[in-house]
Amino acid sequence: MRITQLINQPFVHPDIARDFSDRSFVQAMLDFELAIIEAREHNSLIPKGILQQTKQALAIDLFDIEAIGSQTYLGGNAAIPFVAQAKSLLPTEIKPYFHKTVTSQDVVDTAMMMMLKPALKRINQDLIDVLQACAALIDAHSTTPMAGRTLLQHALPITFGVKVSQWAASLIAVMPNLAQLEQSGFYLQWGGPVGVSDQDNEQYELPQQVATLLGLSLPLLPWHTNRQPIHTIASALDACAGAMENIVDDIALLCQSELGEVAEPAIKGMGGSSSMPHKRNPVLCGLIKTATLRMHGHLSVISNTTAQPFERALGQWHASWVPLAEGVALVAGAAAYLKTLLQGLQVYPERMAANLDLNSDAYLIETLQRYFLDNQEQVYPLIEQASQKAHSEHNGFVQTLLALLEAQSVDSDANNNSAELKVILSPLTYSGAAGSQCQTILRAIEKLILTLKGDK
Amino acid sequence: MRITQLINQPFVHPDIARDFSDRSFVQAMLDFELAIIEAREHNSLIPKGILQQTKQALAIDLFDIEAIGSQTYLGGNAAIPFVAQAKSLLPTEIKPYFHKTVTSQDVVDTAMMMMLKPALKRINQDLIDVLQACAALIDAHSTTPMAGRTLLQHALPITFGVKVSQWAASLIAVMPNLAQLEQSGFYLQWGGPVGVSDQDNEQYELPQQVATLLGLSLPLLPWHTNRQPIHTIASALDACAGAMENIVDDIALLCQSELGEVAEPAIKGMGGSSSMPHKRNPVLCGLIKTATLRMHGHLSVISNTTAQPFERALGQWHASWVPLAEGVALVAGAAAYLKTLLQGLQVYPERMAANLDLNSDAYLIETLQRYFLDNQEQVYPLIEQASQKAHSEHNGFVQTLLALLEAQSVDSDANNNSAELKVILSPLTYSGAAGSQCQTILRAIEKLILTLKGDK
Amino acid sequence: MRITQLINQPFVHPDIARDFSDRSFVQAMLDFELAIIEAREHNSLIPKGILQQTKQALAIDLFDIEAIGSQTYLGGNAAIPFVAQAKSLLPTEIKPYFHKTVTSQDVVDTAMMMMLKPALKRINQDLIDVLQACAALIDAHSTTPMAGRTLLQHALPITFGVKVSQWAASLIAVMPNLAQLEQSGFYLQWGGPVGVSDQDNEQYELPQQVATLLGLSLPLLPWHTNRQPIHTIASALDACAGAMENIVDDIALLCQSELGEVAEPAIKGMGGSSSMPHKRNPVLCGLIKTATLRMHGHLSVISNTTAQPFERALGQWHASWVPLAEGVALVAGAAAYLKTLLQGLQVYPERMAANLDLNSDAYLIETLQRYFLDNQEQVYPLIEQASQKAHSEHNGFVQTLLALLEAQSVDSDANNNSAELKVILSPLTYSGAAGSQCQTILRAIEKLILTLKGDK
Amino acid sequence: MRITQLINQPFVHPDIARDFSDRSFVQAMLDFELAIIEAREHNSLIPKGILQQTKQALAIDLFDIEAIGSQTYLGGNAAIPFVAQAKSLLPTEIKPYFHKTVTSQDVVDTAMMMMLKPALKRINQDLIDVLQACAALIDAHSTTPMAGRTLLQHALPITFGVKVSQWAASLIAVMPNLAQLEQSGFYLQWGGPVGVSDQDNEQYELPQQVATLLGLSLPLLPWHTNRQPIHTIASALDACAGAMENIVDDIALLCQSELGEVAEPAIKGMGGSSSMPHKRNPVLCGLIKTATLRMHGHLSVISNTTAQPFERALGQWHASWVPLAEGVALVAGAAAYLKTLLQGLQVYPERMAANLDLNSDAYLIETLQRYFLDNQEQVYPLIEQASQKAHSEHNGFVQTLLALLEAQSVDSDANNNSAELKVILSPLTYSGAAGSQCQTILRAIEKLILTLKGDK
Repeated sequence: MRITQLINQPFVHPDIARDFSDRSFVQAMLDFELAIIEAREHNSLIPKGILQQTKQALAIDLFDIEAIGSQTYLGGNAAIPFVAQAKSLLPTEIKPYFHKTVTSQDVVDTAMMMMLKPALKRINQDLIDVLQACAALIDAHSTTPMAGRTLLQHALPITFGVKVSQWAASLIAVMPNLAQLEQSGFYLQWGGPVGVSDQDNEQYELPQQVATLLGLSLPLLPWHTNRQPIHTIASALDACAGAMENIVDDIALLCQSELGEVAEPAIKGMGGSSSMPHKRNPVLCGLIKTATLRMHGHLSVISNTTAQPFERALGQWHASWVPLAEGVALVAGAAAYLKTLLQGLQVYPERMAANLDLNSDAYLIETLQRYFLDNQEQVYPLIEQASQKAHSEHNGFVQTLLALLEAQSVDSDANNNSAELKVILSPLTYSGAAGSQCQTILRAIEKLILTLKGDK
Repeated sequence: MRITQLINQPFVHPDIARDFSDRSFVQAMLDFELAIIEAREHNSLIPKGILQQTKQALAIDLFDIEAIGSQTYLGGNAAIPFVAQAKSLLPTEIKPYFHKTVTSQDVVDTAMMMMLKPALKRINQDLIDVLQACAALIDAHSTTPMAGRTLLQHALPITFGVKVSQWAASLIAVMPNLAQLEQSGFYLQWGGPVGVSDQDNEQYELPQQVATLLGLSLPLLPWHTNRQPIHTIASALDACAGAMENIVDDIALLCQSELGEVAEPAIKGMGGSSSMPHKRNPVLCGLIKTATLRMHGHLSVISNTTAQPFERALGQWHASWVPLAEGVALVAGAAAYLKTLLQGLQVYPERMAANLDLNSDAYLIETLQRYFLDNQEQVYPLIEQASQKAHSEHNGFVQTLLALLEAQSVDSDANNNSAELKVILSPLTYSGAAGSQCQTILRAIEKLILTLKGDK
Repeated sequence: MRITQLINQPFVHPDIARDFSDRSFVQAMLDFELAIIEAREHNSLIPKGILQQTKQALAIDLFDIEAIGSQTYLGGNAAIPFVAQAKSLLPTEIKPYFHKTVTSQDVVDTAMMMMLKPALKRINQDLIDVLQACAALIDAHSTTPMAGRTLLQHALPITFGVKVSQWAASLIAVMPNLAQLEQSGFYLQWGGPVGVSDQDNEQYELPQQVATLLGLSLPLLPWHTNRQPIHTIASALDACAGAMENIVDDIALLCQSELGEVAEPAIKGMGGSSSMPHKRNPVLCGLIKTATLRMHGHLSVISNTTAQPFERALGQWHASWVPLAEGVALVAGAAAYLKTLLQGLQVYPERMAANLDLNSDAYLIETLQRYFLDNQEQVYPLIEQASQKAHSEHNGFVQTLLALLEAQSVDSDANNNSAELKVILSPLTYSGAAGSQCQTILRAIEKLILTLKGDK
Repeated sequence: MRITQLINQPFVHPDIARDFSDRSFVQAMLDFELAIIEAREHNSLIPKGILQQTKQALAIDLFDIEAIGSQTYLGGNAAIPFVAQAKSLLPTEIKPYFHKTVTSQDVVDTAMMMMLKPALKRINQDLIDVLQACAALIDAHSTTPMAGRTLLQHALPITFGVKVSQWAASLIAVMPNLAQLEQSGFYLQWGGPVGVSDQDNEQYELPQQVATLLGLSLPLLPWHTNRQPIHTIASALDACAGAMENIVDDIALLCQSELGEVAEPAIKGMGGSSSMPHKRNPVLCGLIKTATLRMHGHLSVISNTTAQPFERALGQWHASWVPLAEGVALVAGAAAYLKTLLQGLQVYPERMAANLDLNSDAYLIETLQRYFLDNQEQVYPLIEQASQKAHSEHNGFVQTLLALLEAQSVDSDANNNSAELKVILSPLTYSGAAGSQCQTILRAIEKLILTLKGDK
């Protein structure tokens, strides 16, 4: 009785989907209720043994999860039928200790946080691997020239190393945030029916203890209608989506048949096409792009439902659940795919060089003219000719020019000065501080990873 | 291995969810492929009997649907593993007739259209019932005065009938569109690998025949990257969501404890609160509001992915599936809930009257002064006193004034002119053309329903 | 005291911006009020001469428009200070006839409609020119082969004509809607303080007359909180934006330095780059893309504010103004730029052919093998060699193969069968029904333009 | 020639609008170029005196700002015509020192950052005042009972102090972020044509110096296509918008005529209604709500354009300008209005008490029954009667009950136990830890303000 997941499944992280099952959600709701009983018992606010009895009575397998699902519409959330089932399973004498000073919103919000947090941990782990894959690419290609492209047109040369450095810079911008979020951005929700909590709970600092038991953070106040924690999670996920989308947009464009500068890793069964046997489709890029595009829609829902009137919103609260859960699963899926993509990315420096040469006259001619100043009568016409010929034949300028020079026996002269000419003709000469930018990012990556691993 | 639907289930229409199951999706993909074979066989383009053989070989129960799901990530869509499974099930000699001149996008797009169309039919049917419920409310309350409210503040009087007429006007604005969409907005997609179709297919007008077999419309051209059909569906669903949200926003506000002007129908098990036994939560409003808020996010994704580069987009195509499928399921859920809500809406004219009287001095004083002109020395101070007393005590002005007049024995005079005074004090005197507006809408509803039912 | 328009100006249509000036907005508000007086005078509901006197007293130049602007925050809209100024300019004896049975929302909503309608007319006119430019391109290029590209990778061949046909199909999908919108989608708003209008207004059918005077349509009811007309406008604009974005995404990609299949028209001063003198930036594409991306955000605001509680919304109403006005100006700007772009688009069939040949082995080898069956021992190895050589050298397969055949003297044989071989090697052989698709669209364009021009 | 701002002006902060004028934008672009020259001159990379000469030649009044605006469409941004004008104003000999190693994107991005930063400072200052206004309200109303409301229905009692504490908690959640953003979130952009900067610039650490001169932060790398800084700004602004929207949604609802629990400050000329003289419209709420709703749309555009392909995006870059500039102006406007609103908010505890009593039977009856256990035969029926009578007459339960008790002479007994009964009847008895929550927030406010002021 569920909407087909055949249209969703490829994009969400399979482990996250498994961790986010109906059963896990019921388990999370149950764990929250049990933690409260545990804290109360620990503080002798209820008789010893209640926790044990409750646990025994409420083994997860005793719940009819399908029935919970089919009754959610009656109250608009899953906590109500869950609590009803739980109470029906409990011996009469311990019923009163269950779900005390707790409201449905507490149960749903806390269960959501419990489910989101491990997903974020997985994202963060995968992003470290992504960053390390970036570092390897930067290291390998810090002097691999390629065309810089602005407005989708060739501009001056850059290196593939510096392009990957830019990708890494986007990730570096989001990762500390995500790490902090994992550490302290998932809050216990426990405010009772109208969020003012309970004198006893506060006096015995039960929320602290429950938060600790569940691995969640303790908020300043219950946040039933202060949805900033939700906004923060969604913004951080969307920022991360943007950083990943940035990378795959570049890769997909570089994979184009005419460019051929990179290719996705060859993975058995992936990216083939029945009608074009040699085609390697950038499937990983597509999977990631899909996830990021959908994340933007989820952020839009969260953004438009952050304001929640009075002590529990009618709709704005409920509308945020799927965007959050699906958002984190999509971003986690994308991060895992991105790791595969970057760890196996195939790079073709010779295609980069050939493409770059298509418009190298734009930045070379002036320097070449200076170099051949003493031989201008012979060489200037060749330079001009090479430029025109290269463009009209869609070939490289340097390649064309060298052929012309050779044909005209200017090569000897060129050879005599080959070291200097080599520098002049090298795209790296025109790629500014690309090299030191690569170094800057390699250091930043190293430092960030140390910090993030140190956090664990 | 699916993301929990406990957070989604209450909002989507259960029948739509069932109709949108994995199995139904596979069935739809299969039906499309079979329809092509049927059309080909019918035109003697392939040997007789292929259809029958294919059908036998591909009974839906033979498919391993779970396996299809788990392989979708390899190519980014479900059609690829579905076709692979189908081919593996087919006898070698008829394999070549299957999935010919068809590409994955054809399969997925057409299957989606086949699944969306019945959902729209259901929405349209429920909206007719909603409109009839509106008509009944308008009819019953065309002279039930209530406060008009602008910027959430009391303004001049309206009637509850005219308020419902406004709700109906929103629905009337979207329903012809939705009806037309149901009739002719769900298109066959069949363009082959790059959308240029196949000479034979065109010559024998196979697309027309396949469209007819599947109950879909024939597009001008394959629409693999012309996603206007998708944009049209999403816009129409969002417009419908907006019309429904408009209604439930009003109802939820009118249900507020202080207003109490309407209440949701009493449904066993629905809307109760453990901490406040007498509370009737507007759960239906909440369910509908949630669906509409989420629909807006889905539209945002569709809007941002309408442009799809080249002959198949990388991500923009894939990103539209869930927003479409979930969108239609949410809107269908909302329409069904709205029908329940409006058919059973409880209306409290006396609370409307009492609330309206709280600020009736605003529009009554001038007229009353004119009426009591000959008795102004005695009555004017009472009017002023009544206004102040009513506001300070948060009571009705007319109620307060009549008590004061009686106490001062002005009543005799008032009674002598009771008919005229009754008119003066009647809020309907100040509610403009509300009555004729109700009639206008009742006629429009009648006409629209006739047209829509005539369409069937 | 206005936010810089240097960041907005390039994207909005200059004429629309001029038509949407502060002065025009005040003029529109004034015209609405005058039309009401005219209708009343015409029906002898007020003395003769009031209109003339009011017009004289309220010459547009007498208004202090800056002062209106600076007072808008006091009531949240421009109608309040406008009406106040107007009243202060009027002779005492005719003041009472001004702004009677009218509320601020009537003034703002109607003025907005008056300003939006001409902008839509301009869009529709430009789109007809765009469509005609498409027709010319289709006509010229119905047999110009190019690579079909799916997931940004080469797939089977299409023609440039069929690509433009797809662009046109998107436009054809939105234009009838936009035409209908221009004709009957801009409604008078006149409901008074709470939307129930006035008995006299209704009895004398004043709304009909005012609507006619202003060139607007008469709604079923006042639509103060039924914002479907707004949703319809925004959706239609966004659909149009999507159709245009679809085109420029393709063009910008085809303009890429490596592809070079099309170029923007050469316009003096446009698209140059100081650092790359030969570069032709796709500036028109960029201007259009920017407008469409921003339109999606405007739709999101409209979508999230369609539901407007009670008889005037607090914020949801006000939030829709800029998205609407800026949205229409952006779409109008984009349409005008698109006309320039498509009327002057430079197309390079030889680059299309060369790019296509890069992967032509994918669809040619099988057919070639059949053709050379009798000579397979000699030719098959050459075919294989050509395929490998072409890919490794990033050259065309056919070009490479023909050179090899010639070198091996297979050419004589090829020449003997040149007509058949020519067909085999022609990409058109593999582009399905592209030709008839072009004809379908040319007919559809012709028909649509006739209809649209006939509407005028 | 600008789109009317009459529809935008009330919502944006007037000072921000002034600071964001065309002239200021040109000034910012100029300041950036001058700072580069200053840094170069300081490092003796160019002759002494160039800065002085350039400054003299480029007095802001010499620029034809209108002409810059009218030429922006040629290259898609304002930097191109600005640089052209500047160069035409410069003496030939110093032209070469101007705009060196700088690209248009550097100029526009840096100018935007320079304009955004002061706006954020203003927002942060106003938010401190808002927070202090919250503290005053919390302090004054920590024991003012009111109805808690969930799903827009009465639930258990809270206090107005704790409601304001929740508002403050939302602000506390966003303010440290915004403060950090102001301090270090506005980055210099200076990467040259393809972002790889220039060897000399890096060697002499010119970017650091230019950043310092302009009061901006130095990024790890140029961020031409790493738009995380933009995403961070937009997310933080939207979070702030959400926190403010949260507050005004509550206030607007509490202002409703039937509730009357708070009112906006009385400001001359603001919030009046011609048709309802006594009405006080929540205009400030409306102004703020409008700004926040529009901010959500701006975030949606930023979110969907964060990924920017290659070394300069075509459209995604340009589309972010207005959302950013208008976004910050809207949020600044909202913050200023919110300060006015909260500093002057009128609170009516007696209306809160009266409304709360409407459903106080829900939580009182059980306790009352315990209290009157010894007198149950006499009192229980009265309690039941009071509950029914109160609901049917829409009056307070306690008020009704006390009247019945008095009438039945149960009062003597009640009076004898008045202290205990007072506690039982006090809503504070049922509002959990509301008091300590207020204290928690007061401490948090104090601490945060100290920190934020210490940062200055």
